[in-house]
Amino acid sequence: MSHLSDLKATLAQITHLQEVSQILSWDQQTYMPPGGAEGRSEQMSTISRITHELSTSSDLGRLIDGAEKEVSALEPTSLDAQIVRMVRYDFDLSTKLPTNFVAEVVKTTSMAEHVWMEARRENDFSKFAPWLQKNVDLAKRTVEYYGYDDLPYDALLNLYEPKMKTRDVRVLFDQVRPVVVRLVKAIQERQGSIDGSVLLRSFDESGQEAFSKEVVKTFGYDFNRGRLDRTTHPFATSFGKNDCRITTRYDKNLVQMALMGTMHESGHAMYEQNVGDDLVGTTLAGGCSNSLHESQSRLWENLVGRSKEFWQYFFPKFYAQFPEQLADVDLATLYRAFNQVTPSLIRVEADEVTYNLHIILRFELEQDLLDGKLTVADAPDAWNQKMTDYLGVTPTTDAEGVLQDIHWAMGGMGYFPTYSLGNFVSCQLFEKALEANKDLPIEIASGNFSSLFSWLKENVWTDGRRNFPLEQIRKATGRPLETSPYIKYLTNKFTEIYSLPPI
Amino acid sequence: MSHLSDLKATLAQITHLQEVSQILSWDQQTYMPPGGAEGRSEQMSTISRITHELSTSSDLGRLIDGAEKEVSALEPTSLDAQIVRMVRYDFDLSTKLPTNFVAEVVKTTSMAEHVWMEARRENDFSKFAPWLQKNVDLAKRTVEYYGYDDLPYDALLNLYEPKMKTRDVRVLFDQVRPVVVRLVKAIQERQGSIDGSVLLRSFDESGQEAFSKEVVKTFGYDFNRGRLDRTTHPFATSFGKNDCRITTRYDKNLVQMALMGTMHESGHAMYEQNVGDDLVGTTLAGGCSNSLHESQSRLWENLVGRSKEFWQYFFPKFYAQFPEQLADVDLATLYRAFNQVTPSLIRVEADEVTYNLHIILRFELEQDLLDGKLTVADAPDAWNQKMTDYLGVTPTTDAEGVLQDIHWAMGGMGYFPTYSLGNFVSCQLFEKALEANKDLPIEIASGNFSSLFSWLKENVWTDGRRNFPLEQIRKATGRPLETSPYIKYLTNKFTEIYSLPPI
Repeated sequence: MSHLSDLKATLAQITHLQEVSQILSWDQQTYMPPGGAEGRSEQMSTISRITHELSTSSDLGRLIDGAEKEVSALEPTSLDAQIVRMVRYDFDLSTKLPTNFVAEVVKTTSMAEHVWMEARRENDFSKFAPWLQKNVDLAKRTVEYYGYDDLPYDALLNLYEPKMKTRDVRVLFDQVRPVVVRLVKAIQERQGSIDGSVLLRSFDESGQEAFSKEVVKTFGYDFNRGRLDRTTHPFATSFGKNDCRITTRYDKNLVQMALMGTMHESGHAMYEQNVGDDLVGTTLAGGCSNSLHESQSRLWENLVGRSKEFWQYFFPKFYAQFPEQLADVDLATLYRAFNQVTPSLIRVEADEVTYNLHIILRFELEQDLLDGKLTVADAPDAWNQKMTDYLGVTPTTDAEGVLQDIHWAMGGMGYFPTYSLGNFVSCQLFEKALEANKDLPIEIASGNFSSLFSWLKENVWTDGRRNFPLEQIRKATGRPLETSPYIKYLTNKFTEIYSLPPI
Repeated sequence: MSHLSDLKATLAQITHLQEVSQILSWDQQTYMPPGGAEGRSEQMSTISRITHELSTSSDLGRLIDGAEKEVSALEPTSLDAQIVRMVRYDFDLSTKLPTNFVAEVVKTTSMAEHVWMEARRENDFSKFAPWLQKNVDLAKRTVEYYGYDDLPYDALLNLYEPKMKTRDVRVLFDQVRPVVVRLVKAIQERQGSIDGSVLLRSFDESGQEAFSKEVVKTFGYDFNRGRLDRTTHPFATSFGKNDCRITTRYDKNLVQMALMGTMHESGHAMYEQNVGDDLVGTTLAGGCSNSLHESQSRLWENLVGRSKEFWQYFFPKFYAQFPEQLADVDLATLYRAFNQVTPSLIRVEADEVTYNLHIILRFELEQDLLDGKLTVADAPDAWNQKMTDYLGVTPTTDAEGVLQDIHWAMGGMGYFPTYSLGNFVSCQLFEKALEANKDLPIEIASGNFSSLFSWLKENVWTDGRRNFPLEQIRKATGRPLETSPYIKYLTNKFTEIYSLPPI
């Protein structure tokens, strides 16, 4: 198998270069002094260019052609067959966009981001509108280059969720939206029944850091192959499975930010730390898709980190770290505080219940913009109307409305739905893990996360990017991507917390 | 000038890749978790390979040929002419070694390093001897590949000091050795006249860090384009002139280590932070040679940081940081403590006076090994004999003798003399700066380093690697490389400190 082994050697080079880009970016967001910005952007651009040349070279194309023949007799689920299949997919995708067009996108979105920042600061949508129009036009051209079988939006969605169909995602969102809207309304009527103010007391940062580290270490995040640093916009990153780092930010008067954020990022990082050793250097040693990745972060942040069982175990430890702040707080109060639902205008501050409504709104508007059903000029009003309909709150400025996210500035249309899909998948996986081990809640309540960790490792993490996302979900759960576990989880949990009448 | 501009575009790529290697290395030595080691070595090897391919490609060779014609009519001191000249020098050098030989060197020295570590730990020279022999043989073959006009050692020396002659270095060392040997003997007779024990008191690390930062900031090291981190083996590194970082290590009971180390590294870093803007991305935006670089670190560490004037200004600040530790200490005691001379067995712990004897010893042994005048088997005894002759102390184990440095294991023959040359150059430059501004000592005593900073910037730093080292020294001082300023400095300073009779 000489083409295959040559192919693997090239993939290893590409992998190293991708890892190097991640290192440059991690440093940029953690320790780089301000003066380094310009040089860093040049270093990153050189590495990107070399990576792109290697990933789209005709030499690589020939190696893939040859390797396909060599693996044609293998089982489709064998490692080599899966590597070649995925590399073929990546190669065809990355060679579809002309180099000039890629350069145009980079240039336009970089300018658009700059303008967006100003427009948001000045609350002036008219400034950003022409750039949003340019980005919508670029998205349309991107769609044409990539092509699609069914709906144009598929081409954008598939950048983040390979082989998923917009039409199927719509069905899922249509199942979730009415339930969540009703849930939000019912909770609104019980507003005031939860007092979350305990989380706004003053919690010193070193205590937050110590506790957050203890939590994710207990989960199974391996600090011998990772670390936790401070940054402005938290993220997880991987330089190979043996160096997966997480970052967070601290607010003394908002204790959940660092804690929940660290748990969230640890989910991403544990995924990457536990891909199969056989995938190292193949370009498949990473998460399967955005939604699968997000399912892991959400699972550890929400299904574990906001659960009653989690706090049963960690409350005494949290108390030991902050005895003064928690002197008059009991477990039930703390648990409810971490699960308070408050419809708000800003997505990134949203709670577990309202979060998906923010996503559904964006998913709908993106499709309408792409199809031409919605003009850029009408986008602010359409945004505000949906906020009112879904969440019962209405932005008074565009800065807290249509201008709030960077995604449409950076050319990230198609990305938003993956956040909600991640929530759905997290519940579907967790339900399956519970099926396999009914004692999971008891284990969590006693600080034992090993069987949950092992289940996820065996059924998701170890496969890396061997499968497309819907294949991976079916492999792990025996089912297609479904919303019923999510709807059941959300309804049960918040009906109990807010003592709601049946939804 | 189309070849020249294409050449510059390629040089920019090479520069970015070199900077990326430095970033990977910095991270490895500061924040990388233990698990990252194997992946990091693969990432670095991929970047090195790409850099080497680009730096030795026949395409680059043709661009240099073309550019040489284009700049042939320019003044030799014009920037473009100097760029082409230096790039030609680099290219010819890096294409002289066959790729297979380079791979053999990398493999052998990497194994040799490993064996050396064991041999030193176990104090077993016989274990390392065959690997030292291999490295000597590789050095001989390296010499043959590079070629030389006069002495074989020139080819090794020129890797660190382009165009310098071994014969000339011998002359300089022969001037210095007897003076220093006499100085050491005289000081030995006054041993006990200085009590340096104050530096061994307990100084908390955060105080050391705060004071060290204050010092180098006052020097002119720009933290907006740099930072100070902890590491095991301190170094300075540059990712471009706008991101030059320094590292240090702390010992609570050895306050000079972090402080002097930080000043030392700040000298390296200020050099890199202040190369001319016109050199950015040309592969010339760095230090001129090892000795020039070392001259800057030594100048700030020794000529400034161990001077009476420095402590006149900084003593009250040092005292403010450590009032308890310094309660019974006056300025004169502290100044002398920082300048205590104690012949010791270990180079890296040596003081200003004895340091060069450690270097001269190694320089002499290296030449004898290369010429065959000394066999590997006889090296330990030869080492010990010279230690006795020059320093009056004799190693009782090979671990503190011939096995103490990593250089001969890592294939770094030719490197050692640059340390001493750096000391000579530091004094030659400082003398010249003093000539230009007689008030320098008064300025330093009042915490004003701006005219020294400016003089170095104008006469050394801004030129980067435009000139070969001897050219740069002449340009800055109007003289060839000389030892008389160094001999004068050392003799005067320590005659006063130790109240010695005339040497």
